Amino acid sequence: MTDQPNTPAPLKLPTLSTARIETLADGVFAIVMTLLVFDMRVPTQEQVDAVGLGQALLALTPNIISYVISFIILGVYWVGHHNQFFYIRRSDRTLLWINILYMMFVALVPFSTGLLSRYGSDRLSLIVYNINLIAVGVVLYLHWAYATRDGHLLGHTLDAKVDRLVRRRILLAPSLYFLAILVSFVSIAAADLLDVLIPILYVLPANFDSIFRGRQDR
Amino acid sequence: MTDQPNTPAPLKLPTLSTARIETLADGVFAIVMTLLVFDMRVPTQEQVDAVGLGQALLALTPNIISYVISFIILGVYWVGHHNQFFYIRRSDRTLLWINILYMMFVALVPFSTGLLSRYGSDRLSLIVYNINLIAVGVVLYLHWAYATRDGHLLGHTLDAKVDRLVRRRILLAPSLYFLAILVSFVSIAAADLLDVLIPILYVLPANFDSIFRGRQDR
Amino acid sequence: MTDQPNTPAPLKLPTLSTARIETLADGVFAIVMTLLVFDMRVPTQEQVDAVGLGQALLALTPNIISYVISFIILGVYWVGHHNQFFYIRRSDRTLLWINILYMMFVALVPFSTGLLSRYGSDRLSLIVYNINLIAVGVVLYLHWAYATRDGHLLGHTLDAKVDRLVRRRILLAPSLYFLAILVSFVSIAAADLLDVLIPILYVLPANFDSIFRGRQDR
Amino acid sequence: MTDQPNTPAPLKLPTLSTARIETLADGVFAIVMTLLVFDMRVPTQEQVDAVGLGQALLALTPNIISYVISFIILGVYWVGHHNQFFYIRRSDRTLLWINILYMMFVALVPFSTGLLSRYGSDRLSLIVYNINLIAVGVVLYLHWAYATRDGHLLGHTLDAKVDRLVRRRILLAPSLYFLAILVSFVSIAAADLLDVLIPILYVLPANFDSIFRGRQDR
Repeated sequence: MTDQPNTPAPLKLPTLSTARIETLADGVFAIVMTLLVFDMRVPTQEQVDAVGLGQALLALTPNIISYVISFIILGVYWVGHHNQFFYIRRSDRTLLWINILYMMFVALVPFSTGLLSRYGSDRLSLIVYNINLIAVGVVLYLHWAYATRDGHLLGHTLDAKVDRLVRRRILLAPSLYFLAILVSFVSIAAADLLDVLIPILYVLPANFDSIFRGRQDR
Repeated sequence: MTDQPNTPAPLKLPTLSTARIETLADGVFAIVMTLLVFDMRVPTQEQVDAVGLGQALLALTPNIISYVISFIILGVYWVGHHNQFFYIRRSDRTLLWINILYMMFVALVPFSTGLLSRYGSDRLSLIVYNINLIAVGVVLYLHWAYATRDGHLLGHTLDAKVDRLVRRRILLAPSLYFLAILVSFVSIAAADLLDVLIPILYVLPANFDSIFRGRQDR
Repeated sequence: MTDQPNTPAPLKLPTLSTARIETLADGVFAIVMTLLVFDMRVPTQEQVDAVGLGQALLALTPNIISYVISFIILGVYWVGHHNQFFYIRRSDRTLLWINILYMMFVALVPFSTGLLSRYGSDRLSLIVYNINLIAVGVVLYLHWAYATRDGHLLGHTLDAKVDRLVRRRILLAPSLYFLAILVSFVSIAAADLLDVLIPILYVLPANFDSIFRGRQDR
Repeated sequence: MTDQPNTPAPLKLPTLSTARIETLADGVFAIVMTLLVFDMRVPTQEQVDAVGLGQALLALTPNIISYVISFIILGVYWVGHHNQFFYIRRSDRTLLWINILYMMFVALVPFSTGLLSRYGSDRLSLIVYNINLIAVGVVLYLHWAYATRDGHLLGHTLDAKVDRLVRRRILLAPSLYFLAILVSFVSIAAADLLDVLIPILYVLPANFDSIFRGRQDR
């Protein structure tokens, strides 16, 4: 919003652009997070008559598990996207399209989570799930790498140390998801466990957070 | 937007952060509020041929009741969330995750409302409904307690009297929902009635509102 | 955003408040406008094998008619809501709740439009449709009447002439929808026709528009 | 945001207006982009028992193809809409209604994409698809033509050369989609191929982009 008198236009567009990218992304995340709730139907009278309300509700357990896992993973990626826009303040066609690609993979997360929670003992569902999350992570990395390349879309100067920290943190997830695929060829149960643990890493407070509080640990 | 020259970054991020939390929350609330409308289908020709249009529409009554109750409860919690951001102006990872948790429980409200409106005479559905709303209320309290702890995320100074008033008001709902569970072991009808009355408490104007008009009653 | 040093709080909250009301309303309108698209399914191979693709697509005609009518009516009410916020710049609990009520009736429009487009020859569906739209219009009027009462929520001074013009324009629709109910007891076809014409009135440019261009016709 | 002291109101409304148009549009795009994900259901146990998980997932291929194509096309039109608001800073009733019309056609894209991906060898589905996209493109052109007419809704002065470039770029798509209809009468496969290639034209970086970077190529 700080217009230099000589070049008002090129500064104004990017400011507006990231605003709309963020609105679109927030809309997509809101829909995708609540998507699995659409599948949680109140048991019908016939179901209740047949097995009782308690049993009918218990039958929703896989839906509830998918819902919770999917919500947490989408939360992780919403926070990750959100944090990048602390630095990114301008946009261009390429950044718009990286964002669209990001949302395309993000919107598939409820599907792959549902697949894993229902067919967790099948290696195929594990591979589909992990490939989905690797794709999300890789596009998030691309987003950062493109935006910080020669700093043309940044609004703040980016410390080289912070940059390294951010990159390592973003790449950690896809690396672990790739590891989970490899592990699945040894033990599917171990790979399932690994998949459950990965998002928790990102929910826990990190020394990474200090960046956003202005106290950079050196 | 008022950057002190010495510490621009830590001030800018939090401002942006609550904006995106609010956009995401508004998106989730918009979807969840309208969710039950997806179940209200225009009666098919076969249904109308079988029982007539009047009867076919009457069969939607439980849907309409769930819709109205769910809309009002979600309205209460949207207003509650909204009002907290009058004070909260900065954000951090923990606040982001409390918000994600909040939305996760909020998005279940249409389901539990539907359950209650269809199986209101069954204690189990009453317990599920009340636990859902206790969880929403407790997370909303956590949100406030965390954000006001040593005032690190606040944008306004918070009067101790206002703080007490806000806390009491937030905790009132989960306490009453807990009471409804206890009452249900004596009389399910009484518990149902209590559940209908609780949201009305929050719709009515409160002396609490004066806070937001700048006239604090002392 | 212009804080007078003596009264920062009461000015800041209302500004924020209408922003979030508008975001929530835009979210609800976006969902409700696109709601009927969810019912437009690509014909299955079985349907195409049975009747051919052309026939299978023709069978979607009532869906398309509902979709278009519903979109236009929701457009009218989105524009109406939107225009009110030209004047309204502050909010309070009552205004929040009038908005929630407004959205509750708005979200029912696709249902009643679908009902009318499929059972237009049945007086009952006509009455349901018209009552829905009367409710929307009356709540929109309440919204305006409350916000302008002693001007406590306005950001601009409101010319008495403009106020009269706005009120007349808002009340026109529910009056005509009420008329359509009366007409339906004489001729259902005439009432259907009236219902189709009413939204068109609001799409056409009006001398009313000059208000927003700063040239008030006196 | 630059209020001339003598005419504050007419400038303020349009500023607010494009903000809400953009929020509504972003909401509609977010829903419509993710719409096809709603159709991608995790295979049921019966399906998996019958054909195996691999086959059950393969059966989702047409859904995935529709999803990807639809996402990209909607991305193109979101970017196009977004870029216009670089110049458009005010709004009036006509612009609101052009936007509503735009969203009405945009929301049909997942349907027509699904139709094409499932019945691509049928000329009728090809025609429906291309007419949908011609309508979207023509309305987007109307949007630009109306907003720039005597510059009454612009916030920046518009170079005649840029104007020509924008118009040519917007009209390119509907022209090619019209061509695809003509081609379909010679070879449906060629028309299908053309339809796949058109969006790619818009994803690739264009010399057009330099406008938004402040370096206008003369």
